[in-house]
Amino acid sequence: MPNQFLHLDRVFWALGDPTRFAIIERLAQQPSSVSDLAKPFTMALPTFLQHLKILEKHGLVTTKKMGRVRTCALNGAKIDEVRSWLDIQEKQWAVRLNALDKRAESFATALKAARA
Amino acid sequence: MPNQFLHLDRVFWALGDPTRFAIIERLAQQPSSVSDLAKPFTMALPTFLQHLKILEKHGLVTTKKMGRVRTCALNGAKIDEVRSWLDIQEKQWAVRLNALDKRAESFATALKAARA
Repeated sequence: MPNQFLHLDRVFWALGDPTRFAIIERLAQQPSSVSDLAKPFTMALPTFLQHLKILEKHGLVTTKKMGRVRTCALNGAKIDEVRSWLDIQEKQWAVRLNALDKRAESFATALKAARA
Repeated sequence: MPNQFLHLDRVFWALGDPTRFAIIERLAQQPSSVSDLAKPFTMALPTFLQHLKILEKHGLVTTKKMGRVRTCALNGAKIDEVRSWLDIQEKQWAVRLNALDKRAESFATALKAARA
């Protein structure tokens, strides 16, 4: 695994929860104060804050305190890192699939020639 | 959340484990029999099979039995679905960031004009 993708499994784990997944979707639309962000969720605030802390710990969300208000924002760079890993897996898979297709084609041609 | 991305949080959860993450990376390189795939992992085979079952259940891996050998392959379509979701979050975030930049710029210009 290339060094830059170390610990990415933990980032996937952080995204793999319905509350945290929804937080990311909301922050993609706009930065938000913690209290606004928490509003649609029915859980207790400390539980919500725990989810936010996990997203922050894994670099998906940044928070900044201005006066009394803490504002949360999406970290696009981390989203891009996750996407890059998926890109690599998909490309390798596609190259391999293509090679298998070509092998199957050669095999079919050889079989046809042998039968002719 | 658009319908096509329902349950994607579970797919992230499925990817969020070091063993399952490593399985995806290996299958991206080439399809593999279950026994070959299990070789580098030190855990007991039933534990490994549980991980594989989770990846299959969430559509990331397909398995096919030919005679006595079960072959596993990556499901590129699911990888693409996950990537699409990340693309959307990233694009929305970038558009929003751009809009904020423009607002900050207008504000700075207005402030400069007021001071002139």
